[in-house]
Amino acid sequence: MSSNKSTYAPGYVPSQITHHEWRTVENSAAYLLPTLRALSSKSDTSPLLLDIGCGSGTITRSLASHLPNGKVIGTDISDEILSRAKELCHGTDNVTLKLANVYSLPFEDGKFDVVHASMVLGHLDNPVAAYREMLRVTKPNGGIVANREPDLSICTYYPRSKPMDEFHALQLKVMGEGAVIGPKMVHLAMEAGAKREDITPSFGTWCYASPEERKIWGGAFLERLREGNLGKTALEKGYATKEEIEGMIKAWEKWSESEDGVYGCMLGEILIKKGM
Amino acid sequence: MSSNKSTYAPGYVPSQITHHEWRTVENSAAYLLPTLRALSSKSDTSPLLLDIGCGSGTITRSLASHLPNGKVIGTDISDEILSRAKELCHGTDNVTLKLANVYSLPFEDGKFDVVHASMVLGHLDNPVAAYREMLRVTKPNGGIVANREPDLSICTYYPRSKPMDEFHALQLKVMGEGAVIGPKMVHLAMEAGAKREDITPSFGTWCYASPEERKIWGGAFLERLREGNLGKTALEKGYATKEEIEGMIKAWEKWSESEDGVYGCMLGEILIKKGM
Repeated sequence: MSSNKSTYAPGYVPSQITHHEWRTVENSAAYLLPTLRALSSKSDTSPLLLDIGCGSGTITRSLASHLPNGKVIGTDISDEILSRAKELCHGTDNVTLKLANVYSLPFEDGKFDVVHASMVLGHLDNPVAAYREMLRVTKPNGGIVANREPDLSICTYYPRSKPMDEFHALQLKVMGEGAVIGPKMVHLAMEAGAKREDITPSFGTWCYASPEERKIWGGAFLERLREGNLGKTALEKGYATKEEIEGMIKAWEKWSESEDGVYGCMLGEILIKKGM
Repeated sequence: MSSNKSTYAPGYVPSQITHHEWRTVENSAAYLLPTLRALSSKSDTSPLLLDIGCGSGTITRSLASHLPNGKVIGTDISDEILSRAKELCHGTDNVTLKLANVYSLPFEDGKFDVVHASMVLGHLDNPVAAYREMLRVTKPNGGIVANREPDLSICTYYPRSKPMDEFHALQLKVMGEGAVIGPKMVHLAMEAGAKREDITPSFGTWCYASPEERKIWGGAFLERLREGNLGKTALEKGYATKEEIEGMIKAWEKWSESEDGVYGCMLGEILIKKGM
């Protein structure tokens, strides 16, 4: 699997990181809460959870708080972001962080009760290979693979503006197929060998509307346009002119300051129960 | 307000009704659960809830089950659908059903602890007038208006097909602005006099993926194309040819039978806390 590309294309700009660090189980993995509750209610076992592509580790830390009787291992392909995760998880005793690639996880077969990934497979060239590897390290007979990925073709917002519509079209162009993986996850999991009846799909949402949320979300996109890979790629590939990008930045600024501003996006989610 | 149009444009075809009757608080008004829990925990009061545009009444019945110490009044503008609601609510002692128009509700000011409407305002010409009337009959000092409405521009599905994409474009054309009201609800509620800090927006989702769900959802759209107002209006207004509609029907049939078929849509939600 060494031919599979493993990079994080969006890059790390400060506001994107602020958005990442806003994430918790409650706002980004609520579909996994019943599983976590069931595992933490068993006082005689110590459940083991793997969080793949953990980034700055706020979901990892939050997962660990829901499994006080268990252990959580967070992995990422970036040393840089793992340093930040180490800072943020400092003091959370049941978290370990580790450099690892989802295509070849350094763990034995059937090790984990839960293998979780949030907004990871959409960035990969081969999500089916990733599901196979995630399933490999999941406990047989009821272990759970949990995954949440975007469908960026269906974000919605108010007040509307032409440059923000153009921004969304640009984002889809730059991110390619992975940006719309959400509703396809059942299909991909089946390709990776999961039986349909063992897969439970759902959809979750993010909503940004308070002044703080508008600043975080607007700020993340502003900087991805200004300094991050989104703006760079758009210019290099001729998807947008400098003036068009400036127009999008202004539109995001204006939206961030709109008292009636609301932004919503929908994320595909699946739980896969591993069989025998 | 008598100039405000009050009709239910989609009409009632059997499968559309089947889809409506699948609805409960859990799958269609979960954002209201914390409010219902708080109200039902007060043993010394009997909370009063109004469910506007209750249709066949399955959400109404479900709301009543969450307020065993309270009373729920369901209203609709259609005698026909209220008869069905009476059948389905039979045996639920704390539900009353009543013919009423959202623009001029037959209730005194400040009567209700909660005023709820699901997928109603998107069908109206004047949602701001509806919010004003809903706020009028809500208790001052903390009564709640709860509302969930669609944004049909951002449905997602798999496997993709050209006729299903065309179906979604057609649906938006026929339904007009109301079809995308979801992210605009904060703005509309503010126009109706609510303060921004008293409005809590969120987004909910519907996911259809199991064989039963695919049959219900696919079936509802099949029949709206075949016998309901969607197909009729599309033909009358020249939005689609008979052949194109046949193509969409076949595509929905095929999707319904796809084992890896997933359909998701996102709904705008708001809770408005009434002030003094």
